[in-house]
Amino acid sequence: MPQPDHISKLGVPDPTTLDDDLQVIWQKCVDKLGFVPNVFSAYSLKPQRLRHFMAMYNEIMLADSGLSKLEREMVAVVVSSANRCYYCLVAHGAAVRSLSGDPELGEMMALNYRVAKLDRRQRAMLDYAWKLTTTPWLTDDADRMLLREVGLTEHDIFDLSETVAFFNLSNRMASATDMMPNREYHRTKR
Amino acid sequence: MPQPDHISKLGVPDPTTLDDDLQVIWQKCVDKLGFVPNVFSAYSLKPQRLRHFMAMYNEIMLADSGLSKLEREMVAVVVSSANRCYYCLVAHGAAVRSLSGDPELGEMMALNYRVAKLDRRQRAMLDYAWKLTTTPWLTDDADRMLLREVGLTEHDIFDLSETVAFFNLSNRMASATDMMPNREYHRTKR
Amino acid sequence: MPQPDHISKLGVPDPTTLDDDLQVIWQKCVDKLGFVPNVFSAYSLKPQRLRHFMAMYNEIMLADSGLSKLEREMVAVVVSSANRCYYCLVAHGAAVRSLSGDPELGEMMALNYRVAKLDRRQRAMLDYAWKLTTTPWLTDDADRMLLREVGLTEHDIFDLSETVAFFNLSNRMASATDMMPNREYHRTKR
Amino acid sequence: MPQPDHISKLGVPDPTTLDDDLQVIWQKCVDKLGFVPNVFSAYSLKPQRLRHFMAMYNEIMLADSGLSKLEREMVAVVVSSANRCYYCLVAHGAAVRSLSGDPELGEMMALNYRVAKLDRRQRAMLDYAWKLTTTPWLTDDADRMLLREVGLTEHDIFDLSETVAFFNLSNRMASATDMMPNREYHRTKR
Amino acid sequence: MPQPDHISKLGVPDPTTLDDDLQVIWQKCVDKLGFVPNVFSAYSLKPQRLRHFMAMYNEIMLADSGLSKLEREMVAVVVSSANRCYYCLVAHGAAVRSLSGDPELGEMMALNYRVAKLDRRQRAMLDYAWKLTTTPWLTDDADRMLLREVGLTEHDIFDLSETVAFFNLSNRMASATDMMPNREYHRTKR
Amino acid sequence: MPQPDHISKLGVPDPTTLDDDLQVIWQKCVDKLGFVPNVFSAYSLKPQRLRHFMAMYNEIMLADSGLSKLEREMVAVVVSSANRCYYCLVAHGAAVRSLSGDPELGEMMALNYRVAKLDRRQRAMLDYAWKLTTTPWLTDDADRMLLREVGLTEHDIFDLSETVAFFNLSNRMASATDMMPNREYHRTKR
Repeated sequence: MPQPDHISKLGVPDPTTLDDDLQVIWQKCVDKLGFVPNVFSAYSLKPQRLRHFMAMYNEIMLADSGLSKLEREMVAVVVSSANRCYYCLVAHGAAVRSLSGDPELGEMMALNYRVAKLDRRQRAMLDYAWKLTTTPWLTDDADRMLLREVGLTEHDIFDLSETVAFFNLSNRMASATDMMPNREYHRTKR
Repeated sequence: MPQPDHISKLGVPDPTTLDDDLQVIWQKCVDKLGFVPNVFSAYSLKPQRLRHFMAMYNEIMLADSGLSKLEREMVAVVVSSANRCYYCLVAHGAAVRSLSGDPELGEMMALNYRVAKLDRRQRAMLDYAWKLTTTPWLTDDADRMLLREVGLTEHDIFDLSETVAFFNLSNRMASATDMMPNREYHRTKR
Repeated sequence: MPQPDHISKLGVPDPTTLDDDLQVIWQKCVDKLGFVPNVFSAYSLKPQRLRHFMAMYNEIMLADSGLSKLEREMVAVVVSSANRCYYCLVAHGAAVRSLSGDPELGEMMALNYRVAKLDRRQRAMLDYAWKLTTTPWLTDDADRMLLREVGLTEHDIFDLSETVAFFNLSNRMASATDMMPNREYHRTKR
Repeated sequence: MPQPDHISKLGVPDPTTLDDDLQVIWQKCVDKLGFVPNVFSAYSLKPQRLRHFMAMYNEIMLADSGLSKLEREMVAVVVSSANRCYYCLVAHGAAVRSLSGDPELGEMMALNYRVAKLDRRQRAMLDYAWKLTTTPWLTDDADRMLLREVGLTEHDIFDLSETVAFFNLSNRMASATDMMPNREYHRTKR
Repeated sequence: MPQPDHISKLGVPDPTTLDDDLQVIWQKCVDKLGFVPNVFSAYSLKPQRLRHFMAMYNEIMLADSGLSKLEREMVAVVVSSANRCYYCLVAHGAAVRSLSGDPELGEMMALNYRVAKLDRRQRAMLDYAWKLTTTPWLTDDADRMLLREVGLTEHDIFDLSETVAFFNLSNRMASATDMMPNREYHRTKR
Repeated sequence: MPQPDHISKLGVPDPTTLDDDLQVIWQKCVDKLGFVPNVFSAYSLKPQRLRHFMAMYNEIMLADSGLSKLEREMVAVVVSSANRCYYCLVAHGAAVRSLSGDPELGEMMALNYRVAKLDRRQRAMLDYAWKLTTTPWLTDDADRMLLREVGLTEHDIFDLSETVAFFNLSNRMASATDMMPNREYHRTKR
């Protein structure tokens, strides 16, 4: 039985009907990645919402930070693992494989990050990501202190927390729309 | 023992050092509300992040939608109740009281929304908000169909889902920073 | 949509038909509080049960104890928060506000006690209340030892435990009958 | 390694020092059962609390009710199973064996009531007991309606609910004090 | 209402139709125990599967090991308690009573092992059994180190782990078939 | 940081020291797969245990059954997903990809099987696998009836249940030993 070929269960507008600024972004994606990520297509049902989502995403994942881009992708995958979000695990699992050059690391982040060999700082960040995702009401001074002890600054803790928070948003948008990832991600850097 | 007087455990910059655009917003808040919401102060640690947060917030909570502003606030409070987020329960509980003119409704949303007297459409939206918050991986076609049966359009389901998703982000930023709400909220529309 | 105006979903007898001893208590409540607490009305469906409930309640909450009356009310609210009991959160949240003169403290106990500024003794009591409520089977010598270390005597531990136990009873009676709190509680000491 | 021989980890007063009314009860227990139930000994640390506990217990478990005494004991055991309360499972498991003359029924109630062969009314009562114990905040009109459909009156629902509520109290007192059951219960009606 | 008299809800073949090797085993059980354990009858629906099950069972429970036979039975009962498996709690609870000569120990293992008086080694083994049963994904180096500290060798940890793992298999076969234990177990060594 | 290169945290014997029958199997694995699966190496710490494990495994996964080999592997992966077992997800995820020729199907089984497009029979089998893994005590007649309605015979239900049960065993052996999968699995049929 062939797997699903929808992008979002709420429907996706014809991309040729989108505003020019979005069409430019669509073209850039094709030029750079070879395809438009389905999260953009799904979100284009409401174009203004998409613009805010992309702006926030780019700032969190791509701007300068004490957390490397790989670390931010590792956090993204661990949050998505806790939330069992198919779209984000596939898309950001591929990103971990690409940025690390280590296919196993991507699998470990998606399936059970506790089996990975990590330094204390990265392990502490991922434990924090799991806790802030699954029992945010228990987060307290001791958790922040532990992050400081492994070297995170106040700005780093802010960045880590917002990465966790953002994927708790995007995981729920993906689950709410039954968003399917582009097939290209499955083969990336295996 | 006096209750906490911090705004964020990650610290808050001196507001007079903020960029002009933010200072203008600060002044508007004071003019309109009598105070700057602490979530803005806490987020101003990273001004560009604050700008994206405010843009997304305004679109989700204030733009035209098939969901009324009161309904979006009710969703915000129910999500925050599932996540036991003190800041958002206090600030958005006040908003429910203000918009509904019904102080008990605000309490019910914060403490256990199932005791409230709601029409089928609102009850279905809040049940969906609880489920998408606590077990997003179980959300499926049956959940979307139920929302359609009580009258939500595809755009309404998108808006509802993004409201749920957004407060799953903001609840975690509040927990991560131990964000304290402005005291003014406690007395609003009691 | 106006909020519920029932007292108990199992019905409430006409108060003028109650035995004299209960009518005297009803009058005392009106004289002292301005109203008869709905928990008494709901329980009057079975008058003898009400008498036992009131006797136990008065002993636990009002008799001499190493725990102050405010501390017992704080425990009541934290137990009710774990059980998400609307009636008890509203009625005993009001009691915390009254006894402490601190409206925020009542909100913190109801929404997430971990954000409150408490001394070690009070924090240990509330952590114990949460654990004995949610996972009673894990309570052990280490928990009792921790309470002794912050100064509780054996009698204090008994009193604390019985307060926790009692609200695990009353929370369930409130949920079982969908008991609605008197509206007066909402405005108390805001 | 011999099993524990304490009665309560908070200590038990010398029974000869108790007030006369309690000594009379102690003697009646010995005459009738051959021993004083350890729950009374443990509770005698605070004699006035014991009096209220016994009064409530007798009313709930022994007074006239639409629920048979066996049914109330079955509910007691199912609640104690959900809370994994050793004392109450041993003592009230023995009561189920005694009242039913069916040793297996006692085991089923203690270990997993869902395997027992029950009529619809009893099964509905036990399902309700489990739900009101583990997720009281989800109890609603549908649960009460289901009990009415299998024949329970409003008074029966009150009695059932208070039995559930009471054992949620007594389970927690037993766990809080690490209360050990009298050895006699183990051999009763095997 | 008489309790269930089925052995397995998937049906049980006529024992006289079984292959000779199994009939020999059936006879040995009758000679030794007085009855054929229902788990064998239930499993005989697929004789080859039964053979593998018995071979594995005998190796794990009866072969030489650093864990005594009683300790292996205690682990079996604690795993079955976590999984609330009626068949295994009854059958292996009887084994704990037989091997220890201590009827209370069997009840404690079945109802809440934390109340039993155990040496550090046994308590560590049972805590490990509970954790590996309920949250296997959290098992890590710290858990293994704790077992070594109380004296377990690498072979002992293997044996302990496989005992836990095996009862997680057999508990599920019992639940899947609604397997009923032989009535003889109930009266064993009370 | 390179990922772990151990096979089992309990150590692995030198394969040249194994009994002849096992060395023959080792060689067959190398001939057929190119490598010895690490689960065999880990289990060879206790050779007799390995023999029973392999015998049971081969019967359950390879013998004739109403469930196809692919379906049994799908069940294996869904159970391992519920238990977040890294070894089994990697090794049996590869098997799903190989047997189905559909790389996405393997990912869906591992990450959240509910997003896959399945016929009613397969979906019912996987829902059953999830429930029997996570809450075995709730399995009842209704679950078996649902499987019969989608066409499973009593033998099929037995086979399905034993597959679920077996992976609940093997997941725990993998977690107990921190078993690492052979790297070859990661690249299989991507």
